[in-house]
Amino acid sequence: MRAARSNIVRKLVTKAVMERNLIEEGDRILIAASGGKDSTVMAWALSGIRPAIKKTYELAALHISSDFCACCKKSALERRLIEWGVSFTDVSVPIIGRLKPGRTMNCYWCSTQRRTELLKYALERGFNKIALGHHLDDIIETFFMNMTAKGELSAMPILLKYQKYPVSIIRPLGLVEEQQIIACAEEEGILKTSCTCPFGMNSNRRAVRKRIADFTGNSAAVKRRILQAVDAAGLLTEERAARPGP
Amino acid sequence: MRAARSNIVRKLVTKAVMERNLIEEGDRILIAASGGKDSTVMAWALSGIRPAIKKTYELAALHISSDFCACCKKSALERRLIEWGVSFTDVSVPIIGRLKPGRTMNCYWCSTQRRTELLKYALERGFNKIALGHHLDDIIETFFMNMTAKGELSAMPILLKYQKYPVSIIRPLGLVEEQQIIACAEEEGILKTSCTCPFGMNSNRRAVRKRIADFTGNSAAVKRRILQAVDAAGLLTEERAARPGP
Repeated sequence: MRAARSNIVRKLVTKAVMERNLIEEGDRILIAASGGKDSTVMAWALSGIRPAIKKTYELAALHISSDFCACCKKSALERRLIEWGVSFTDVSVPIIGRLKPGRTMNCYWCSTQRRTELLKYALERGFNKIALGHHLDDIIETFFMNMTAKGELSAMPILLKYQKYPVSIIRPLGLVEEQQIIACAEEEGILKTSCTCPFGMNSNRRAVRKRIADFTGNSAAVKRRILQAVDAAGLLTEERAARPGP
Repeated sequence: MRAARSNIVRKLVTKAVMERNLIEEGDRILIAASGGKDSTVMAWALSGIRPAIKKTYELAALHISSDFCACCKKSALERRLIEWGVSFTDVSVPIIGRLKPGRTMNCYWCSTQRRTELLKYALERGFNKIALGHHLDDIIETFFMNMTAKGELSAMPILLKYQKYPVSIIRPLGLVEEQQIIACAEEEGILKTSCTCPFGMNSNRRAVRKRIADFTGNSAAVKRRILQAVDAAGLLTEERAARPGP
C-alpha cells in the first residue's frame, strides 16, 4: 500500500518514455536538478524505470547554485542521487551578479541563465538529452498563459528535438500531476531533501494557476483531457530547426 | 453618439467579411434567422455593410418555426428584415414531433434538425452560403468545451468550405462579443423584435460560460487573445472534404 503513489509516478514516467521514445539506447541524459521536489522525483523515476525501459542510458544531474540561494540540503540531495545511480555536479552561477545595472531579479532572467548553463554544460560534456522536471500542471499552465497572454496555442513539449543541434529536451514528468509528484515525494522521503526558491513563484503564474484550478475544478479528468487536446494538436512533440533559445 | 455601438458591430462584421473573404461577388446568402438577437443583428449588419463591401450579393432569411415555440414576434421580425432588404421565409418543422419514442427534447436534437432543414433549403433554392449568428463568445465557449469534454483543440470556424459540397458556412459575427451585440440590438431597437428559446440554455453550456467568464475575468482583451490564438492555429478557417454533418 505504502508504495502505491510512487508506483503511479513510475508508471506515468514509463508511459511517457515508452510512447514518445524519450530515451534511446546509449543516451547520455543530463538532469536539470534544481533541488526542488519535481526534478528530484524525476531523477528518482528515471533511475527506477531502468528495468522497464530495457535500454542502457547514463543519468547525470547538474545543480546550478545561484548567488541568492544557499541551499543547505545540497549534500542530502547528492546522497540520494548517488544512491539512485545518478552522478551529481554542482556549478555556481552568479544569477544576480550577471544582471545589468538597474535591472532587478525576476523568474525569466533566472531561468534564462540556468538554461544557458545547462546547454553549455551538456554540449561540452557530450550529453545528448536534457531532462527538465516540468509536470502536467506546468504544461497546462504554460498552454493557458501562452493562449491568454501571447495569443498563441503552444505548450512546453514533452519531446523537443532540433534539426541542427545535438541536444534534445525531454520532460519525462509531462503526464504526471503535481499532486501525484508531491505524494510520491512524501512516500520516498524526497520532500526532506528538496528546497524551494526563496523568491517564490512568479505572481503572474500564481494568478494563472489559481484561475486554471477554478476553471478545471481541479478535476484530474478535465486536466488530462486538456493535455490530450494539446497533444492531439501536436503541441507536445516538436522538432525545431534552430538552436534552443534561452 | 447614439449609433456608436452599432458602428462597432458593423465595423467588426466588415473586418471579418473583408479579411476572410466571407462574401464573394454574386453570393446568395441564406441567413439562419432564429428570431433571437444574434441572428437578427447579423441580418442587420450584413445588410448595412453593403456600401463597404462593394459586391453584389443576395440576402435571404430562413426562420424555422418549431412545434414548441409559437413566436409571437415573427411578423415584427419579418417587417424589420424586409426593411433591411432581406427576404423572409418561414418553414414549420416538428422538432419534437420528429423525436423517436422515448427520447426527450434537447439542444443537440433541435440544432441538428434545424441545420438539416437549412442545408436542404439552401441546396434546393441554390444558396451557396449559410450565415450563422454565432459570436466571439460562442466560438470561445465551443473551443473550451471541445478541449475539456472531447479532448481536442477545435472551434466553430468563421469560414467553413467543403471540397465537394456547394454550400459554405460563414459566421460574420465571429469577431463580435455578445455584449457588443446586445448593445447594438438595444440601439437599433432589435431586442423588441427578438425572442429567446423557451427551453433556455443547455445547462452544460451555461456552466462552461460561467467558468470561462471567471477564467477570463470577462476581459475583452483576454478573450480577443484567445480568439487570436485559435485563429493563429488555423481553427477559424476550415476546408473539409465531406459534406456537412448534422
